[in-house]
Amino acid sequence: MNENIERKLAELGLMLPGQCTPRGNFLPYHQEGNLVFFAGQICEWNGDVPYQGPVISAGATNLSDGPWIDLDDGRKAAQISALNLLFHLRDACGGDFNRVKSVVRLGGFVNCQAGFDQSPAVINGASDLFIELFGDNGMHARTAVGVSGLPANASVEVDAIIALR
Amino acid sequence: MNENIERKLAELGLMLPGQCTPRGNFLPYHQEGNLVFFAGQICEWNGDVPYQGPVISAGATNLSDGPWIDLDDGRKAAQISALNLLFHLRDACGGDFNRVKSVVRLGGFVNCQAGFDQSPAVINGASDLFIELFGDNGMHARTAVGVSGLPANASVEVDAIIALR
Amino acid sequence: MNENIERKLAELGLMLPGQCTPRGNFLPYHQEGNLVFFAGQICEWNGDVPYQGPVISAGATNLSDGPWIDLDDGRKAAQISALNLLFHLRDACGGDFNRVKSVVRLGGFVNCQAGFDQSPAVINGASDLFIELFGDNGMHARTAVGVSGLPANASVEVDAIIALR
Repeated sequence: MNENIERKLAELGLMLPGQCTPRGNFLPYHQEGNLVFFAGQICEWNGDVPYQGPVISAGATNLSDGPWIDLDDGRKAAQISALNLLFHLRDACGGDFNRVKSVVRLGGFVNCQAGFDQSPAVINGASDLFIELFGDNGMHARTAVGVSGLPANASVEVDAIIALR
Repeated sequence: MNENIERKLAELGLMLPGQCTPRGNFLPYHQEGNLVFFAGQICEWNGDVPYQGPVISAGATNLSDGPWIDLDDGRKAAQISALNLLFHLRDACGGDFNRVKSVVRLGGFVNCQAGFDQSPAVINGASDLFIELFGDNGMHARTAVGVSGLPANASVEVDAIIALR
Repeated sequence: MNENIERKLAELGLMLPGQCTPRGNFLPYHQEGNLVFFAGQICEWNGDVPYQGPVISAGATNLSDGPWIDLDDGRKAAQISALNLLFHLRDACGGDFNRVKSVVRLGGFVNCQAGFDQSPAVINGASDLFIELFGDNGMHARTAVGVSGLPANASVEVDAIIALR
């Protein structure tokens, strides 16, 4: 399945990052039994943070100072968070994605202004990728909320619990 | 215990919803081992969202535009989230609530304005119901926080980890 | 290791609180299998909440009314949350910290204003303590986000999943 995952990513025009380093005193993942708990991954790419600030719904008028992004870019940001999770997942399963039994749960956090109601549409950018890559094994439970601040002012952060076999 | 749960709900003047469909590309729950991870459930009722906007403490003066609700309605909203979790729990345990070993953890998110300090009182609306229905087996750990945005501008979202036997 | 933990705490000039009571209808922790799920602990100390309001980055100009704290105090607040988790961990492992197999995951919530980007630096105050006390066994995955409201207007809340042997 390894070749499958890499090939599917390439077909989607995607690749894994070359690096992804925790921005604090913590591990990117911790396995206990067959459950791997992944740290929250912001939408960073090899150290840069291409999507920053709140995700804004179409028609919003209360724009804050500073950067913001729209829903389409929000979905792309969530996809980048998923790619970072996959980078660490590859390590957690010793390079063999065949060992992925199931994606159990995603937790999605969207940088937003008060009253933002579109967190599910944003976090779908991560969920869609896991399902596209792993099929039924990628189907997962999920909680998505909007929050007032994320590390490095990233637009999206996603964490995960994934079961290995 | 099935009849017990249904009877207790009726005694409380409550019932389970007729439906509860995820608002994104995810499953309502995912079981791994004997732990069932439930997706966050907003305070929706058969597709409608009766409680929307931030939960406001008595005496708050910085009211935002748009809908808001008070603490009492916040507790009712959390109870509705719990009913939606129970709807999916019934499915997860094959219709037999006797299989519920213990409610392990609830995660509560309250739509709020900056500085809101009453999230525990709100999320008690969900915790109380689980404990009323399942007794000691319903006692759980919990994290409750206030956030700036929830799906569909719902006032409350609650997720859960529940152990089956 | 018990004496080790108590001695290390003393060397750091720290101690466990004398009490720490849930502020809602929930348990401080719930064990299922060898995983212990700890409820979110705010930065309270024996019932008082010494650090309240948002954590503010140096140079922030949009100060809200009411209390706020700086990053250094934010780290101290996160350390207090960790001490409360350790208070309950001592109970969960029957007073024998040798039974701690590994700190699996911390979840950190920082009371903040819109756009706050320093949640990792704040939650390091909790992570550092677990690692200092438990060494490699204290290394954990983590998610840290900024939120608009915490119980009792606390500045920090941290929850945990810890594996016992």
